[in-house]
Amino acid sequence: MNLIAKTPAPPYYAVIFSSHQSEDSAGYAATAARMVELAAEQPGFLGVESVREELGITVSYWTDLESIRRWKQNAEHRMAQTSGMKKWYSSYKTRIALVERDYENPA
Amino acid sequence: MNLIAKTPAPPYYAVIFSSHQSEDSAGYAATAARMVELAAEQPGFLGVESVREELGITVSYWTDLESIRRWKQNAEHRMAQTSGMKKWYSSYKTRIALVERDYENPA
Repeated sequence: MNLIAKTPAPPYYAVIFSSHQSEDSAGYAATAARMVELAAEQPGFLGVESVREELGITVSYWTDLESIRRWKQNAEHRMAQTSGMKKWYSSYKTRIALVERDYENPA
Repeated sequence: MNLIAKTPAPPYYAVIFSSHQSEDSAGYAATAARMVELAAEQPGFLGVESVREELGITVSYWTDLESIRRWKQNAEHRMAQTSGMKKWYSSYKTRIALVERDYENPA
């Protein structure tokens, strides 16, 4: 299965979320799966790629900043963000980036 | 160990490299490690984050597009890119993105 997001031609936005988990992972997996499902229903969502080892990187792709802002403020997502900050992540960093160019193989 | 890159205040650039490996991984690990070492010596390099499961995501951070262009054309890196394209990756996608904002916890 190809897990690389099939995004349209640039420009579009990427939200790069890098994180370390804490010891407390109770409820994490179910919420993470639910957030992917919920994100995919949002206007402006283009795709997501996610990998976790010791470090986790999740990159979600969006048409524009307004879509990202709305998703950040989604009520169910806000509850998940609070749990993430309080319980699941010992540290994280979020970067909002404008994708200017992309290329792939096979094209 | 915190594997989240300690990047400066935006703006700066991110190169998001998403890939699936092929069956042929001979020489891959050594070259991948060498490329991280070599990238870190380049002008404009700010940091790198890398995770692999079925999907691999490597995000490298750079001060500007010119640094990214020079790194892409580095001779040793070009050899690695050729091996990657011919042998190690069944598919990949590279995205060049301008990081406009970031935030973290703990700050």
